[in-house]
Amino acid sequence: MDFAFDARTEELRGELLAFMDEHVYPAEAVAEEQRAALASPWDTPPVVEELKAEARRRGLWNLFLTNQHGLPGEEYGAGLTNLRYAPLAEITGRSPQLAPTALNCAAPDTGNMELLAQFGTEEQRKRWLEPLLAGDIRSAFAMTEPEVASSDATNIGTRIERDGADYVITGRKWYISGAMSPACEIFIVMGKTDPEGADPRRQQSMILVPRDTPGLTVRRAMRVYGYEDHYHGGHAEVVLDGVRVPATHLIGEEGGGFAIAQARLGPGRIHHCMRLIGMAERAIELMCRRAVSRTAFGKPLGQQGVVQEWIADSRVAVEQLRLLVLKTAWLMDTVGNRGAHTEIQAIKIATPRTVAGILDKAVQLHGAGGVSQDFPLAELWAAARTLRLADGPDEVHQRSLARRELRRYA
Amino acid sequence: MDFAFDARTEELRGELLAFMDEHVYPAEAVAEEQRAALASPWDTPPVVEELKAEARRRGLWNLFLTNQHGLPGEEYGAGLTNLRYAPLAEITGRSPQLAPTALNCAAPDTGNMELLAQFGTEEQRKRWLEPLLAGDIRSAFAMTEPEVASSDATNIGTRIERDGADYVITGRKWYISGAMSPACEIFIVMGKTDPEGADPRRQQSMILVPRDTPGLTVRRAMRVYGYEDHYHGGHAEVVLDGVRVPATHLIGEEGGGFAIAQARLGPGRIHHCMRLIGMAERAIELMCRRAVSRTAFGKPLGQQGVVQEWIADSRVAVEQLRLLVLKTAWLMDTVGNRGAHTEIQAIKIATPRTVAGILDKAVQLHGAGGVSQDFPLAELWAAARTLRLADGPDEVHQRSLARRELRRYA
Amino acid sequence: MDFAFDARTEELRGELLAFMDEHVYPAEAVAEEQRAALASPWDTPPVVEELKAEARRRGLWNLFLTNQHGLPGEEYGAGLTNLRYAPLAEITGRSPQLAPTALNCAAPDTGNMELLAQFGTEEQRKRWLEPLLAGDIRSAFAMTEPEVASSDATNIGTRIERDGADYVITGRKWYISGAMSPACEIFIVMGKTDPEGADPRRQQSMILVPRDTPGLTVRRAMRVYGYEDHYHGGHAEVVLDGVRVPATHLIGEEGGGFAIAQARLGPGRIHHCMRLIGMAERAIELMCRRAVSRTAFGKPLGQQGVVQEWIADSRVAVEQLRLLVLKTAWLMDTVGNRGAHTEIQAIKIATPRTVAGILDKAVQLHGAGGVSQDFPLAELWAAARTLRLADGPDEVHQRSLARRELRRYA
Amino acid sequence: MDFAFDARTEELRGELLAFMDEHVYPAEAVAEEQRAALASPWDTPPVVEELKAEARRRGLWNLFLTNQHGLPGEEYGAGLTNLRYAPLAEITGRSPQLAPTALNCAAPDTGNMELLAQFGTEEQRKRWLEPLLAGDIRSAFAMTEPEVASSDATNIGTRIERDGADYVITGRKWYISGAMSPACEIFIVMGKTDPEGADPRRQQSMILVPRDTPGLTVRRAMRVYGYEDHYHGGHAEVVLDGVRVPATHLIGEEGGGFAIAQARLGPGRIHHCMRLIGMAERAIELMCRRAVSRTAFGKPLGQQGVVQEWIADSRVAVEQLRLLVLKTAWLMDTVGNRGAHTEIQAIKIATPRTVAGILDKAVQLHGAGGVSQDFPLAELWAAARTLRLADGPDEVHQRSLARRELRRYA
Repeated sequence: MDFAFDARTEELRGELLAFMDEHVYPAEAVAEEQRAALASPWDTPPVVEELKAEARRRGLWNLFLTNQHGLPGEEYGAGLTNLRYAPLAEITGRSPQLAPTALNCAAPDTGNMELLAQFGTEEQRKRWLEPLLAGDIRSAFAMTEPEVASSDATNIGTRIERDGADYVITGRKWYISGAMSPACEIFIVMGKTDPEGADPRRQQSMILVPRDTPGLTVRRAMRVYGYEDHYHGGHAEVVLDGVRVPATHLIGEEGGGFAIAQARLGPGRIHHCMRLIGMAERAIELMCRRAVSRTAFGKPLGQQGVVQEWIADSRVAVEQLRLLVLKTAWLMDTVGNRGAHTEIQAIKIATPRTVAGILDKAVQLHGAGGVSQDFPLAELWAAARTLRLADGPDEVHQRSLARRELRRYA
Repeated sequence: MDFAFDARTEELRGELLAFMDEHVYPAEAVAEEQRAALASPWDTPPVVEELKAEARRRGLWNLFLTNQHGLPGEEYGAGLTNLRYAPLAEITGRSPQLAPTALNCAAPDTGNMELLAQFGTEEQRKRWLEPLLAGDIRSAFAMTEPEVASSDATNIGTRIERDGADYVITGRKWYISGAMSPACEIFIVMGKTDPEGADPRRQQSMILVPRDTPGLTVRRAMRVYGYEDHYHGGHAEVVLDGVRVPATHLIGEEGGGFAIAQARLGPGRIHHCMRLIGMAERAIELMCRRAVSRTAFGKPLGQQGVVQEWIADSRVAVEQLRLLVLKTAWLMDTVGNRGAHTEIQAIKIATPRTVAGILDKAVQLHGAGGVSQDFPLAELWAAARTLRLADGPDEVHQRSLARRELRRYA
Repeated sequence: MDFAFDARTEELRGELLAFMDEHVYPAEAVAEEQRAALASPWDTPPVVEELKAEARRRGLWNLFLTNQHGLPGEEYGAGLTNLRYAPLAEITGRSPQLAPTALNCAAPDTGNMELLAQFGTEEQRKRWLEPLLAGDIRSAFAMTEPEVASSDATNIGTRIERDGADYVITGRKWYISGAMSPACEIFIVMGKTDPEGADPRRQQSMILVPRDTPGLTVRRAMRVYGYEDHYHGGHAEVVLDGVRVPATHLIGEEGGGFAIAQARLGPGRIHHCMRLIGMAERAIELMCRRAVSRTAFGKPLGQQGVVQEWIADSRVAVEQLRLLVLKTAWLMDTVGNRGAHTEIQAIKIATPRTVAGILDKAVQLHGAGGVSQDFPLAELWAAARTLRLADGPDEVHQRSLARRELRRYA
Repeated sequence: MDFAFDARTEELRGELLAFMDEHVYPAEAVAEEQRAALASPWDTPPVVEELKAEARRRGLWNLFLTNQHGLPGEEYGAGLTNLRYAPLAEITGRSPQLAPTALNCAAPDTGNMELLAQFGTEEQRKRWLEPLLAGDIRSAFAMTEPEVASSDATNIGTRIERDGADYVITGRKWYISGAMSPACEIFIVMGKTDPEGADPRRQQSMILVPRDTPGLTVRRAMRVYGYEDHYHGGHAEVVLDGVRVPATHLIGEEGGGFAIAQARLGPGRIHHCMRLIGMAERAIELMCRRAVSRTAFGKPLGQQGVVQEWIADSRVAVEQLRLLVLKTAWLMDTVGNRGAHTEIQAIKIATPRTVAGILDKAVQLHGAGGVSQDFPLAELWAAARTLRLADGPDEVHQRSLARRELRRYA
């Protein structure tokens, strides 16, 4: 249980902090201005491409791709461990609209690249993984469906049916992150190839669907508490109406969809949680700056007991969360995702709700400004709150973790 | 302490429920569709004017204007008591985008009409109150400022300076609700006429500023968690740069601003809280409908203990809130705003946070749909959450209520 | 929905407040001193009998016994409604160790007297109800069992078997309140006469068992967070080992036990909840007195924001609770227990946990004194906390209330 | 940041777990039985001495005394680091009445021994430290006073006045843990030698007062939610009325009391928090055992969603707490108490309230049994709850931690 940041981690942290100070933070206002002038809100502000180029130049690129479990991290990326990447992900969470993309470390591309690296054929890797690693295109992961509780994969309604040398796909998906961006050229679609199969975990498969395939319609942008999340390519509703692709687009084997989805989860949870912790740190900083500069009823907010309580409780909570996520990363590196199962669920339960709570206090401290577009707090809150639902609501993970705990006594 | 709904109230409730069923709920989808086709998002969908005409025809018009404290309710409106109006306000809260406007009972116009009825000169009433009562124009109340903790009125930075027969106004306001709508023709502006005055509660005055007065700029729409609140005319940032109006535009006397602001508060709190309760009832209904129709892990959500807990706790909370708000309305009718001071603060503290909590549970139960635009829950949550800040953050009211409680033992 | 205190209620409140000031509060210290000198901790301090005599002399006696639903309140007691008695119960909650007993209004005797008045034979009323009404003896209600989740009456393990002219009772009960007191001469025992009966709600019966019946053993005093609750006769574990009583001791008919238990619940919930509200008021008073008299870090606690928050939130919560309990009492008076079903559950869910929360804040404000025997707060907290379990844990009532709510949409 | 348990720690953990299984858990029932037969509740059950002898024989003795900061751990004890001792303290928390005493690692003796080892003269160490290390006597630490908020040391009212070759001590203390036990032979008393001194942190001194010194009266046992805590020697009120001791009994120098008190705090916080975590683990185990064995409404409690939520949230919370405490121990070992200041406060804020919350859920799951003496839950809850007040209430630590956080932005 050694979470110390080793020399390589410290070096990368130093480089990343410098990049944030010199390029990312200054770009925040520029990007907002450029966005206002874009033809479409889904286009990318030019400064983002400049950030990407600079990050790549500095070697801060594809840091997420670890060597774990046969992931060819060194071949494709920086070859870090989860524990080494985790504190870097935290830093990118301090500017979540720009930094992850700048480093080519943004969801859902990260999970998709891992998936292709691990399960893709050589052809698939050539055609999709390489441009993704180069930051030339983006990708989507189409799992969630509006009609069913799709956190339970046995409920998936989309059908993937074999027809000669092709598969034909029919279904409706929503909250497909990134898919509003025209740069998103490839969809990984989860559906059922064997809906009546005896083993409910072998009914699903995953398949690659290029954006321009006939029958695939990106219908509309779903909102998150009023936000459309333009920087990340939004969250689309996508209709697949008899979409036909060659059978070679299947990822892995028929019936392997559930297992691939499970394998995809672990590292992404670390990334999300560490970025959330970065967001919490930014919230605490904003709270403190407000508290020392704003006066009500004759004294600075920071001298008022209720505000002190908020700040103290936020600090205490963040310290605990970070240790738990780091331990989980370390476990994944040492005993694998399966051995870290309880911890991966634990961070999924604890982090979004705790960070959302901290952001809510920060909003309260900022008054009307807190809910406005002049501070990042309301939008960050919406993101954190939504992560209590993404990948399954809290309650699904609580149920699963409790059953595992109870099993020791049955 | 008699909160029973008398015969007149029951009659009006029946009429209003019929109007909701026959006109308002069916108009919700129509309005959304019309809005998509408007030239400006700040224009009003035609169906809203139809609803207003129908409500007026049915006598469901200006119901908010009570007879209390010399308010000429019978002259101008339905002449109800606060206790009679409260359950009607709750009903309008079930469709908060349309119903209050349809009945000419939407904030901030209601408070502004009360204010003009009570403190306006005959000329002011003629020129501004009458078209407001007729629903021909809308109005704004410009108090909150971005630079200061303006829940403490002694912090107000805007200046109202006498210059011959005029006043000249300079300042910056934000979150001025309704002001993005072109129908909003008149601003009631709070500022200081005597910033160095010895009595900090006599430094402020209120003054009428027509929208087209040179120097008044509606700069931008402020957001609330990503929402712009088009139906209510948004929340504007407004700059007043040497705005000159005749001295006759002053409301009441110089130094009377603080007292007028206090007088304006009471009924509006009842309205907000009862509408919030209506929103909570809609949330409970949506939770129940979802719980009986959606299945996860082999049984309907409504048979799962956690969901039952959410529903039960929501029901228990709403019953308590409603009684407290009704008691407060009854107190205002019988002993006046001053006698209801503690209760007015209590409902301000309790209602937004409790209702926001209920809405949050409803969001969670709806999964991705909960945060989306396909259910009203996320937007209602944002509205309820923001009311924990409007008219001063919770903490200001807790402080004040506690000091009053402590005074009995000092 | 008229909860106003009528003239009779105000008169009784005045008389009761005077009795509290003149006799009950002064007796608190006396009783403590006398208790230290008693031969057994289960004996009654002499001052308690003096309080009873004085209360009876003043007509403050058996106030709990209402006229509702055929309860012969006027014949036996003061003939109040639930709504009239409720504010009196609140007042007795301010001194919960002495006041309810002084007025012959203490649980479980009150419920037992109601039960005998409503379901007892003339002989049973003569032999047990009359001395209870006179305050000469006390009684117990033996329902809860250690081995099963007895909030679900179908789980009851105790057997009541007919044997000629007798019934023979075998089982184990615990937390039988009052039974440690030697004055407790009669037990009402719930058991199964027809354990295999088709209708699970007709398997149970209730029967009277005098304390001195062979086979009945009061085994030990159960504790509640370290307290033994001497003033109320404690909470006993009771073993019934082949206890034989004449068949005439059965209450009502065979199979009527469940229905009688249900009928017994309603008024008792009002009493408990109003006494809890009285306890909350005493806690707020103690908080305020401490806050104005104690200084830390250079200013009185009452000027510190966190303390203000506690006091404000406590006041806001208590106002809501009281209204809900009064409404429930009023409903029971006007539409009966069945019509008040949801509200009776709602107050059972809301009151103990809210009041326990207030008491916990009061403990915190008193530092070490808060957990000590020098203030009543810790002991009151233990009582309030335990009421989240008595008559079924919160979760049982939440489940039941939610199912009723959901039924409207099924 | 390496919290791994090294080989020595694992070895000791194995030995301690064996000792728990073979001796401590079996002794729990024996001790309860012996206690019932003791002449005084403050005497020690014989089995405790047997446990001590056995622990000593096994080398599980004085494990708490670290080498940190000149503490002569190796000379007097096992010479462990804080990080090595922490997991052992957790294990003792699973049987908190017996295990810490059995290992001579019980508060307040541990802190007193550290204090004497660090600040005592040779004579003081000879006379008091040696018999303490041998487990022959016990000791008390007399700081808390009933009249003042003594978490703020400037409020201390006790006076220590020089009179020739003696000091004369006058004051009143309460919640002096251990002092009810006749084995407690020595008191370390905090008082003011220079009450008017300019530096408020140099007014206090500490002095040794043998129990039999004239003028020292152990007046009564203070309670904690009804419990007297016999196993730990209770919590006494102690009056010092002109108590005279030789000047050589002073610890350190005049005016050094505040600094010594600060130095005493760190390790004790680790011990308390780790024992609390052990208590939480026992609570989770009891919850799980109950959940798999008890049925309500037709299925085991463990299959009910609310119970799953409690268990999952408890597990998630404990994992975070443990990591934070281990990190704090590691910091104390590597950068000292001062460098670990924020973390020491953080664990003080987080651990008692979180563990009390877990215990409360466990109580709820056990129904009436939960509040009874038949399960350890209620008593453990009282202990955890009280630790939110011991060494200063949560709010004092929140305030201090927040001020430190804010200082970075001032």
